[in-house]
Amino acid sequence: MSLEHLLAERTHAMGASAIREILKVVSRPGMISLAGGIPAPESFPMDIMGELTERVMAKYGPAAFQYDATEGFAPLREQLVGHLRQQGIAACVDDITIGCGSQGVLDALAKVLITKGDRVAVESPTYLGAIQAFNPYQPEYVSLATDDEGILPGSLEACLASGGIKIVYLVPTFQNPTGRTLGLDRRRQVAELLRRYNALLIEDDPYSALRYRGDAVPAIHTFAPEHVVYVGTFSKILAPGLRVGFCVAPDPIGRWVVLAKQGNDLHTSTFNQAMAAEYLAGGYLKRHLPRIIDLYRPRCTALVGALKAYFSEGFCWSDPDGGMFVWVRGPEGLDMEAVYNRAVARGTAFVPGRYFFADPEEGIETMRLNFTMCDEGRIDRAVKILAEVVSEERLRV
Amino acid sequence: MSLEHLLAERTHAMGASAIREILKVVSRPGMISLAGGIPAPESFPMDIMGELTERVMAKYGPAAFQYDATEGFAPLREQLVGHLRQQGIAACVDDITIGCGSQGVLDALAKVLITKGDRVAVESPTYLGAIQAFNPYQPEYVSLATDDEGILPGSLEACLASGGIKIVYLVPTFQNPTGRTLGLDRRRQVAELLRRYNALLIEDDPYSALRYRGDAVPAIHTFAPEHVVYVGTFSKILAPGLRVGFCVAPDPIGRWVVLAKQGNDLHTSTFNQAMAAEYLAGGYLKRHLPRIIDLYRPRCTALVGALKAYFSEGFCWSDPDGGMFVWVRGPEGLDMEAVYNRAVARGTAFVPGRYFFADPEEGIETMRLNFTMCDEGRIDRAVKILAEVVSEERLRV
Repeated sequence: MSLEHLLAERTHAMGASAIREILKVVSRPGMISLAGGIPAPESFPMDIMGELTERVMAKYGPAAFQYDATEGFAPLREQLVGHLRQQGIAACVDDITIGCGSQGVLDALAKVLITKGDRVAVESPTYLGAIQAFNPYQPEYVSLATDDEGILPGSLEACLASGGIKIVYLVPTFQNPTGRTLGLDRRRQVAELLRRYNALLIEDDPYSALRYRGDAVPAIHTFAPEHVVYVGTFSKILAPGLRVGFCVAPDPIGRWVVLAKQGNDLHTSTFNQAMAAEYLAGGYLKRHLPRIIDLYRPRCTALVGALKAYFSEGFCWSDPDGGMFVWVRGPEGLDMEAVYNRAVARGTAFVPGRYFFADPEEGIETMRLNFTMCDEGRIDRAVKILAEVVSEERLRV
Repeated sequence: MSLEHLLAERTHAMGASAIREILKVVSRPGMISLAGGIPAPESFPMDIMGELTERVMAKYGPAAFQYDATEGFAPLREQLVGHLRQQGIAACVDDITIGCGSQGVLDALAKVLITKGDRVAVESPTYLGAIQAFNPYQPEYVSLATDDEGILPGSLEACLASGGIKIVYLVPTFQNPTGRTLGLDRRRQVAELLRRYNALLIEDDPYSALRYRGDAVPAIHTFAPEHVVYVGTFSKILAPGLRVGFCVAPDPIGRWVVLAKQGNDLHTSTFNQAMAAEYLAGGYLKRHLPRIIDLYRPRCTALVGALKAYFSEGFCWSDPDGGMFVWVRGPEGLDMEAVYNRAVARGTAFVPGRYFFADPEEGIETMRLNFTMCDEGRIDRAVKILAEVVSEERLRV
């Protein structure tokens, strides 16, 4: 039978992620892909996974496999209090809710906060996974202007002053897709604006632990905890396949999130939460994180170095202190989707930057390059090919 | 700051589960609880969990910890094809979508199907977790009349004939809360009605593997696969804390569910899906399931036997062939919530049946008794106390 008549109204707002479609194309053998946005498998602490699973089973027994509280596994929430304190984030156990990755947290937040037509302010460009979490609840997006240091506080102020902004969503550190980090002064200004306009920020922070140089910048949460839901994840510091994320939320938002989560999935996998808890409690993260950083730092350097070596005048790029991405902007008129098609034919992939903008006319001349999934040699080869392809495309235009 | 103004309209439709509140009360030490709805921890195959995790790591390596397809881990979907075939359910890999428990599947289905005000037909009484999954999408419920063998096909026909029913939701086998099973003839009638009225059924089947006597009854899906989304789970046959469920859905519903799930949580834990896949592939389920059944069968017998021994005239109860619950109906006028309060004071707990009805005036004189969490001795003691408490309450009334 035809089932189209059964579709809910909101379902029309759900598009397949264009990036996921790209990732399917570029997964073919031999392709050098700077398109992905995922951690390198060699970054996972495989040497201790067996030990971690054994510890979990010895310590918690059947309780690690039983239904558990929607709020999250108590030992993990307790461990997170100390983990967050080291980053200057003050949270008690009751402030913390665990979700199925930060995606699960973003969905639950959107579910309890967004009514159809509500206005959500996002960076331009912004992280697409958040848009996918928000879209089913049918918000309208307001774009915040950005420069090389992230959003312009003036743009946020104008946006908040216009009224009716339900949520501000930012990735302030090593942003996806740009790799940019919002500086300390701007963070303070953002916090002040949140207070002045009684506004709520979702601060999505998946990457800040992946810092390759420079000093840590405090989370915006530290400046205005009453106005910020801080969202974190184990996907980049342990393993994404465990699907463990969390948020620190001001009351009563955490309680609302728990209500939504009861309906969403009852709770996040007890076993995986116990793995994350032991990863913190046993000091594994402290020992393993430097290895992840040592793996990614030369890849980041290689990517930026190759851009300097092969890309000519008219191009600029971010030079991130951490994270997983470099953002490249070419001369106006250069269509990076055409470049993408040529590059894929040459066995090299990336994501055209326009997918990260709400306005389809924006970002035509931009691209996102990921550096976590290839070693330095492959990164160098890929960027060389991209430079050649770009030159061909510029000649054609 | 006050944040109440940020609440989405739908959030008002989300209540905390009354049962979850009860379960908090009854978790105190010394309480004999027939209130829960969860598997016994001693039913988990703890003796093979270590072997399973080792197999997963040896076989899949880092891929078991990496991001994976939203549809589900390919080896699990492949294993499920054969597993379902043994139950007479024809499905190819593309028909199967994995979710975070059946709760995650129900949420994704509701998300893509239910627009505010849509009518959803449910058994009366029905499973509350489904209501919690559906409520945020703001449907209206239509109750289907039931007797000792589940829903009355005539009630379903009248409901479908009235028009505008978006989804029918049933737990046809060893239902929660009643323990009842819809007979073969009625299943055929339901399938015929689904076809005649071009309707869609969500057939939720968490318990059918837990059969203690009698022959298996085919799923309604087998009679009308084009009209049925079959929902299954590993929660009762492996472990609920892994949060692995699945559905078999007619195209394009599965594709819609995948779209929704991308926003919900990207995908279900790869590692846990790999555990479930190896549980099937290695023949572990086949060896372990008889042990679960041998654990629960005498508990079921003990509960029904104790009801016969201690409960006097005016009471009737279901005598299930499997599952986790027995449903008791007392004489009209007996308030099982008053009985509950007295019973808890005597250290024995259950769930008053009225919570499982949409209409708060229904089911006042009913209770749900779970038999999976206590051994036979404790079940006998609990039912004896319940009988005493009921007598006291009847004297008072």
